[in-house]
Amino acid sequence: MAEAALDAVRRELRGFPAAARELSVPLEVPYLDEPPTPLSFYRDWVCPNRPCIIRGALEHWPALQKWSLPYLRATVGSTEVSVAVTPDGYADAVRGGRFVMPAELRLPLGLVLDVLEGRAQHPGVLYVQKQCSNLSTELPQLLPDLEPHVPWASEALGKMPDAVNFWLGEAAAVTSLHKDHYENLYCVVSGEKRFLLHPPSDRPFIPYELYPPATYRLTADGSFQVVEETAADKVPWIPLDPLAPDLARYPSYSQAQALCCTVRAGEMLYLPALWFHHVQQSQGCIAVNYWYDMEYDLRYSYFQLLDSLTKASGLEQEAR
Amino acid sequence: MAEAALDAVRRELRGFPAAARELSVPLEVPYLDEPPTPLSFYRDWVCPNRPCIIRGALEHWPALQKWSLPYLRATVGSTEVSVAVTPDGYADAVRGGRFVMPAELRLPLGLVLDVLEGRAQHPGVLYVQKQCSNLSTELPQLLPDLEPHVPWASEALGKMPDAVNFWLGEAAAVTSLHKDHYENLYCVVSGEKRFLLHPPSDRPFIPYELYPPATYRLTADGSFQVVEETAADKVPWIPLDPLAPDLARYPSYSQAQALCCTVRAGEMLYLPALWFHHVQQSQGCIAVNYWYDMEYDLRYSYFQLLDSLTKASGLEQEAR
Repeated sequence: MAEAALDAVRRELRGFPAAARELSVPLEVPYLDEPPTPLSFYRDWVCPNRPCIIRGALEHWPALQKWSLPYLRATVGSTEVSVAVTPDGYADAVRGGRFVMPAELRLPLGLVLDVLEGRAQHPGVLYVQKQCSNLSTELPQLLPDLEPHVPWASEALGKMPDAVNFWLGEAAAVTSLHKDHYENLYCVVSGEKRFLLHPPSDRPFIPYELYPPATYRLTADGSFQVVEETAADKVPWIPLDPLAPDLARYPSYSQAQALCCTVRAGEMLYLPALWFHHVQQSQGCIAVNYWYDMEYDLRYSYFQLLDSLTKASGLEQEAR
Repeated sequence: MAEAALDAVRRELRGFPAAARELSVPLEVPYLDEPPTPLSFYRDWVCPNRPCIIRGALEHWPALQKWSLPYLRATVGSTEVSVAVTPDGYADAVRGGRFVMPAELRLPLGLVLDVLEGRAQHPGVLYVQKQCSNLSTELPQLLPDLEPHVPWASEALGKMPDAVNFWLGEAAAVTSLHKDHYENLYCVVSGEKRFLLHPPSDRPFIPYELYPPATYRLTADGSFQVVEETAADKVPWIPLDPLAPDLARYPSYSQAQALCCTVRAGEMLYLPALWFHHVQQSQGCIAVNYWYDMEYDLRYSYFQLLDSLTKASGLEQEAR
């Protein structure tokens, strides 16, 4: 009796991603040829939680013409910034049964630029990616080159961004699959970013596990140690690499369906809150993103329910 | 093993209405002192699926000054309209194990007005409520007295209403608890309506059962027969009367939490899609509502999932 009901529950949960996709997830990320009006942005993209790539939204930014590795060297080369350093390019990812965070070094941006241009060497893979509004806090000299917010998005969302982040790193630097509780406007100024996306409705097919947190430490000889954070709580994270998924271990991921897109210089990706994303980039790609806090409304409650039921129904254990 | 998982699933489903309420359902239906901008309407009410009562939205309608029972008699008294007639005031409700629809008579509106004013008698309870855009199809003479749509809502929703309905009936006429897949702007022109509302997130506590459909037939002697529609599919409907809930039979309904509000002449209720509603009215209340088709997006898929899981988990059987 309980088994039949549990089977029925699991069947519904496994059927949900396809049902949601059929109604509201496009097969490819659509392009807009110009920025939407605030109303259209909210109604057609934010509320239905649909990604899009917006062209022509950055044309008036001086950054789009000016920013290059030589310009950054001339303008902020001597400025110290926080740099994530990892042995393999993966900051915040599961390695050896732990959730491992990057070593965070303070380096002059000029050194990062030297490494990006092949003029210098540094152990590991470098990624300027500190998501603490590092553009305003660490590189305020660059602020005149762009807007402090995205006016039509701020009007639509009825708020200003919580953070404006600057991203610059090596081609080997990869952001592992995860989600944020932010509406994200991701602007590529130079180079390109490749996003692999899953809608929140794919949650039943995306494995999560709990991992003890740890941090890389870069030693004097240039090797990396993994230092456990023994006092901290375990971290729920996605152990799966969507570029090479271990389908023997996570077979149900084969039923998830990723959207892949490349965001090129001058383009802005609207990455909706709670969408899972995995990000790669071209060498020396320069990008800025705006994080607007999401609304914690019915859609958030529904996602939390989907998340809880995926766990409660044993769907994840079953899939292993 | 299956029992523990099923228990956990049911616990999550039972906990969901309170979690959703805490994040996004107000304790009372809030009032707006003037119509919202299209963007604010979409962002603050439609997208989060929150009801509100809007004042000052009908002030420019001639109807608000002109419409009264005598005015209707003078203007459209001789016009035949479709009238729902029931023995007890409940059209579309569960009676004697059946889903019973009203007798539909064609009567001059003047006769309905006579009954409402106590000048004439008619068997049963009368309610002009045919939801087929009956204002435009049956009473086009009244159209100049109001607007064919709600401009700020049409702009917000990016579409025109699917239907504009006219409502006029006796105090005994009650609309039983149900939901629609429409964004509903319900405008009271004269008298008042009392709404009892449940958010879609209360679904786990709201019983549904399947009933064979039937229709009232008014016989020559003024009594009602119930005629089964033998060829038709069973209809899923809510058997519970929220004004006198049978908590012995449906104990979990005690955990649902209704919002009650009275919408007075000149006020407009925004009744969001998929909200359960039960409606009463003052004698001779005159109202008009606009139905805008809802967006079948992620929120709809989530509701369908909640609905399916409430059934699949056996939560409804358990509650009986």
